[in-house]
Amino acid sequence: MENKEKIVLTGDRPTGRLHLGHYVGSIKNRVKLQDEASKSFYMIADVQALTDNADNPEKVRSNVIEVILDNLACGVDPKKTIFFIQSQVPEIAELTVFFMNLVTFQQLSHNPTIKTEIKEKGFEKSTPFGFLAYPVSQAADILFCKANTVPVGIDQMPVLEQANEIVKKFNATYNVDLFSKINGVISKNSRLVGTDGNAKMSKSLGNCIYLSDSDEEIEKKIMQAYTDPGHIHVEDKGKVEGNVVFTYLDVFDEDKEGVAELKTQYQKGGLGDVVLKKRLIKVLIDIITPIRTRREDLAKNPSQVMKILEQGTKEARKEAEKTMIEVRTALKIDYFN
Amino acid sequence: MENKEKIVLTGDRPTGRLHLGHYVGSIKNRVKLQDEASKSFYMIADVQALTDNADNPEKVRSNVIEVILDNLACGVDPKKTIFFIQSQVPEIAELTVFFMNLVTFQQLSHNPTIKTEIKEKGFEKSTPFGFLAYPVSQAADILFCKANTVPVGIDQMPVLEQANEIVKKFNATYNVDLFSKINGVISKNSRLVGTDGNAKMSKSLGNCIYLSDSDEEIEKKIMQAYTDPGHIHVEDKGKVEGNVVFTYLDVFDEDKEGVAELKTQYQKGGLGDVVLKKRLIKVLIDIITPIRTRREDLAKNPSQVMKILEQGTKEARKEAEKTMIEVRTALKIDYFN
Repeated sequence: MENKEKIVLTGDRPTGRLHLGHYVGSIKNRVKLQDEASKSFYMIADVQALTDNADNPEKVRSNVIEVILDNLACGVDPKKTIFFIQSQVPEIAELTVFFMNLVTFQQLSHNPTIKTEIKEKGFEKSTPFGFLAYPVSQAADILFCKANTVPVGIDQMPVLEQANEIVKKFNATYNVDLFSKINGVISKNSRLVGTDGNAKMSKSLGNCIYLSDSDEEIEKKIMQAYTDPGHIHVEDKGKVEGNVVFTYLDVFDEDKEGVAELKTQYQKGGLGDVVLKKRLIKVLIDIITPIRTRREDLAKNPSQVMKILEQGTKEARKEAEKTMIEVRTALKIDYFN
Repeated sequence: MENKEKIVLTGDRPTGRLHLGHYVGSIKNRVKLQDEASKSFYMIADVQALTDNADNPEKVRSNVIEVILDNLACGVDPKKTIFFIQSQVPEIAELTVFFMNLVTFQQLSHNPTIKTEIKEKGFEKSTPFGFLAYPVSQAADILFCKANTVPVGIDQMPVLEQANEIVKKFNATYNVDLFSKINGVISKNSRLVGTDGNAKMSKSLGNCIYLSDSDEEIEKKIMQAYTDPGHIHVEDKGKVEGNVVFTYLDVFDEDKEGVAELKTQYQKGGLGDVVLKKRLIKVLIDIITPIRTRREDLAKNPSQVMKILEQGTKEARKEAEKTMIEVRTALKIDYFN
């Protein structure tokens, strides 16, 4: 890897508009990485979204434009990053099918990420087979374009490890040096708490602040955010740990010293939640307003946005075709050349 | 179905030359069906062969020409049947990936055919994930060209039932009438005993008579075939049940009355194995000689044979593309139309 160029792959599942959790957990990292990479790919993971939304393709389809708008508005730049839609690069499905032979069923069913997600989604006895296959599919997402750098949340590391097992197994089985080890770039904020104090900001929990929220929505959500339920009067001593407002200030407020002083004051007593919340509202509005404004501008011309995806998808397929020629040679299925 | 035309799909795994078991179990049926069908497809299932031969692609590759030679020599006719290679129709992989979301892991792991084959192949804890997926892949093989008629061995019926479950689930989930029920045509000789009396003629057991065997090989194998171990002297009473020579005579000898008389005589005593075996050798040589001769002629021009596959694969892809347009519309992933 040392001497190789950085090829980055990132992406989002198109299952809803993106929120502050995505912003700090992946998008900011993505914007930074596109400048460091020799090549950067951004994938709309619609095929993956269908693994557990097979019965709701409308939801997946309608959110494709939402997630690309969010990314463009945050500065993921089509001049630096190749935007593409997973389903429109069918070579990924081909690779998935070949990779499936290099993994045992036991490896996948014991994968910690998969086990956790099956539990979280309440699948139990009805786990879609495609869902179980998603680490394999993800290996194909990464390797079709020979990406070697992938930003991941810490809870996704076992999926990346599975992809690296496939890299090793493929190269060893076919006696080639076709794929390289994939490096996971772990974001320091890979999971942002929800406004209600729940460990994860999640659409289904209704505890998100979206990158497309209006100032009023931001204000309303923060005014209702979870703080310290024992901190009733201004003069009461308050807790900082588990207090969503402080968690957000830690992540989003650039004035670290100011936040440290507020924490001291809050813990001593004499600082009301409203003051804190107003400060946080201003910080968040300052971050979100320019994003939302760019988003609204971009949304005026959806066909222009789809053009970015169409053009990027063409470029991604070119990479895919190059890789598949090598894969087909390795698998000895290059019959008609 | 009643009002629809018969679209047939059949195929072989390219893992070895074909033998008499294939001939009576599937090829004869295939030759008949190609005349009844409005469209007939013959698939070389190399992707499926790779599910349990991932580490031996040379074996799969080298047997592609063997199985097509066997089929052409037996009268599967490229003028009536579209010959294609599974891996060269990547739309099948795409369909497989989408179908995988419509099947639960539990359905596949409890499929009787899969359970039996996992046992037979001794996979136990190391079942390749791709192998477990093969009923889904097989549904894609059949449905990419909208085949509705598939010759199957009785032991493969649960795989066909799984494919029909996918048909129902797909149509219901996406509210379309895209795929039709698949009818299995069960061959009356779907399993031929081996020359050693083992229930199945199988390359790995070394008990096969190949369609490419020479007269001498046929003679040698039949002279060593399993009869009745208690039938030592000509005058001994002999058993017909489990006697491979009679089993083969029943299947291959057109003179049913003659065979019936021999059975009576054998059971009474006074008929030697050698007489029977010589008769069977003649019957088999009469069947195999013209096949072997045509096979040898065709083998002189392998590039001509590969042309048949290349041309057929193009036609198969045309069908695949038509089907995928409908599938992508149903899944709402027709973004750039």
